Amino acid sequence: MTKFEVIDKPSHLMAYEAAYNSIEDSGLSINDIDAIVLGNMDVDTNGERQRHIPTILSSLFKKNIPIIRTPAACSSGGSALWVAGKIVENDESITNIMALGVEKLSPCSTFIVADELMMAADQQFEQPEGLIFPAQNALIAQQHFLRYGSNLDDLALIAFKNHENAFLNPKAMFYGKKISLEKIKSSSIVASPLRVFDCSITVNGGAACIISKDKSDVKISGSGLSVDYMATFEREDMVTWTATKKAAEDAYKQAGLQPKDIDLVEIHDAFTIVELISYEDLGFVEKGHGQDLIREGTVKLDGKLPVNTSGGLKAKGHPISPTGIAQVIEITEQLRGECKERQVSNARIGLAQNIGGAGGTAIVSILKKS
Amino acid sequence: MTKFEVIDKPSHLMAYEAAYNSIEDSGLSINDIDAIVLGNMDVDTNGERQRHIPTILSSLFKKNIPIIRTPAACSSGGSALWVAGKIVENDESITNIMALGVEKLSPCSTFIVADELMMAADQQFEQPEGLIFPAQNALIAQQHFLRYGSNLDDLALIAFKNHENAFLNPKAMFYGKKISLEKIKSSSIVASPLRVFDCSITVNGGAACIISKDKSDVKISGSGLSVDYMATFEREDMVTWTATKKAAEDAYKQAGLQPKDIDLVEIHDAFTIVELISYEDLGFVEKGHGQDLIREGTVKLDGKLPVNTSGGLKAKGHPISPTGIAQVIEITEQLRGECKERQVSNARIGLAQNIGGAGGTAIVSILKKS
Repeated sequence: MTKFEVIDKPSHLMAYEAAYNSIEDSGLSINDIDAIVLGNMDVDTNGERQRHIPTILSSLFKKNIPIIRTPAACSSGGSALWVAGKIVENDESITNIMALGVEKLSPCSTFIVADELMMAADQQFEQPEGLIFPAQNALIAQQHFLRYGSNLDDLALIAFKNHENAFLNPKAMFYGKKISLEKIKSSSIVASPLRVFDCSITVNGGAACIISKDKSDVKISGSGLSVDYMATFEREDMVTWTATKKAAEDAYKQAGLQPKDIDLVEIHDAFTIVELISYEDLGFVEKGHGQDLIREGTVKLDGKLPVNTSGGLKAKGHPISPTGIAQVIEITEQLRGECKERQVSNARIGLAQNIGGAGGTAIVSILKKS
Repeated sequence: MTKFEVIDKPSHLMAYEAAYNSIEDSGLSINDIDAIVLGNMDVDTNGERQRHIPTILSSLFKKNIPIIRTPAACSSGGSALWVAGKIVENDESITNIMALGVEKLSPCSTFIVADELMMAADQQFEQPEGLIFPAQNALIAQQHFLRYGSNLDDLALIAFKNHENAFLNPKAMFYGKKISLEKIKSSSIVASPLRVFDCSITVNGGAACIISKDKSDVKISGSGLSVDYMATFEREDMVTWTATKKAAEDAYKQAGLQPKDIDLVEIHDAFTIVELISYEDLGFVEKGHGQDLIREGTVKLDGKLPVNTSGGLKAKGHPISPTGIAQVIEITEQLRGECKERQVSNARIGLAQNIGGAGGTAIVSILKKS
């Protein structure tokens, strides 16, 4: 992957850098890559005017191989990974497939980015009400607080944990930058109760991984993708995201594993409340008890179930499409023991959860050390 | 599929109509559908402000199944079909998968549509030069004329043939509307040498098909997808689209068939010149001899190799994403003998070719009667 940062670099150069990092890591050459699945949301914020990016990749990488694109809002990368897995498993002519995510969101006004991203929410009711994603997630946080006794301090602890992890991750936007709990707690309110530091940070970047039929040191042993109703008000329960539950159920089943078997997790913490309810939806704790895991330190780097050792979307950064692939890179590097100061000891099984919209699409992947 | 027409209907209603037509045709119920792959280009022309359509389909159809989206400019539908085929072949939990294409391009100014679609062309050189798709294809036509002696009359004959076929197709934009050869030849020039009637017609619509593991009367026996360099000037040969050649090669190989085995064809005639060069790229005739097939009547409805019996993009209409799926619907209905006045006799094997951009992405599918 590239470093996640606010940098004015064309999409195709970030794609190039990420792709060649993955090729170098794999020990393969570009000629060994038989197909590419691209996660890219194709937002109009960046002036690139490009709606047919697979052909750009053909020019950059390799001519005439299959290259397809799988946008799914913030889960475009996870979708690419899921589709790539299906294709390589099945297609005799494909030995190595690349899942690639790239997005350029800036430089442009945050107003434009917010407006573009809002198009991933319901057009008929949510958009006209101004229910941008911070507002949407604020309502969910309020519900969880009210029903289950979680609170703003819990969310601040999640933000603090992820910033502590990002401090140790050279690829993270907030690498080497200390953010104190006081700073988090005193930051401005964006949509009550959520503060600035409850929201992930918009960055640019690219991330790629190669899924191979050949033997590898890390295996995807389960991968589920599920789609839910778009609008939050349509759901049976505002604070339960059934797309996550169903995707996780499928992934656990394929892998023959249970939540208790997981050693570390990357969660789609677009907002701190999403990390909290995902502890529950992924089966690590009963519904309504997510806050226990952060209060007791279970999900800290040295806890029993470290979550977002990379820094998460919160502090590593959230460039939309690369996010789902960067999660899998973190898990892979952890399972290989390459994470230095933020290394989790004895990690053998990791889980990554990528979400599009406010729970609209979810992908859960389980990775296992061979 | 829906009728292809210029009608102001929301995307999701066209998707609904197409999907339920396919479900009704298959004898299945919505509960039998295990996953959906959506072709949709998500253009900003229509005011729908919706970039996460899979979640809308979840609300419309079935909750929590995998739904992904595969935009690829004008080949979004063909890409959906190709991906759906890969998934259903491989995934044990998926018996029936739907490939669905939907697009709403109008009502809006043709200027906006042209600008949106141009984003599927190269941004660095082609877009600033005003090389919209009619201009791009005009250059290709000029080259073919110059090198191989084809001419405007050949293109007019292709347009005339497709309008004659559309006259008989109730789902076509030009159903029941006679267009004379004189009218075609005297129509205004859009980009020399191409006239209005050399260009396909922009419509709205939806199309869906279901690929099943269970026995069916029509089988996809080969399916290839290939991506080429984006910009025409990057190609070795302007009048040869290698993405088509490579996709066709893969499809023929998988099916164990050759061009001479094909009984009927749907070609991506976004412009009449594309149909002509595709006769060559698909292997039905040597490079430089495409014009022979239309001059000799080989590709007419009563010819040896009928092409675009549906009316093609030219006269059935080209709603972008549904196009690649509508082609497969036509082939299927022909193989089943359901096409009444435009029925091809003794059709057992059909081929569909869907293109994105000016040859950037190509999908070739071969269908066979069981």
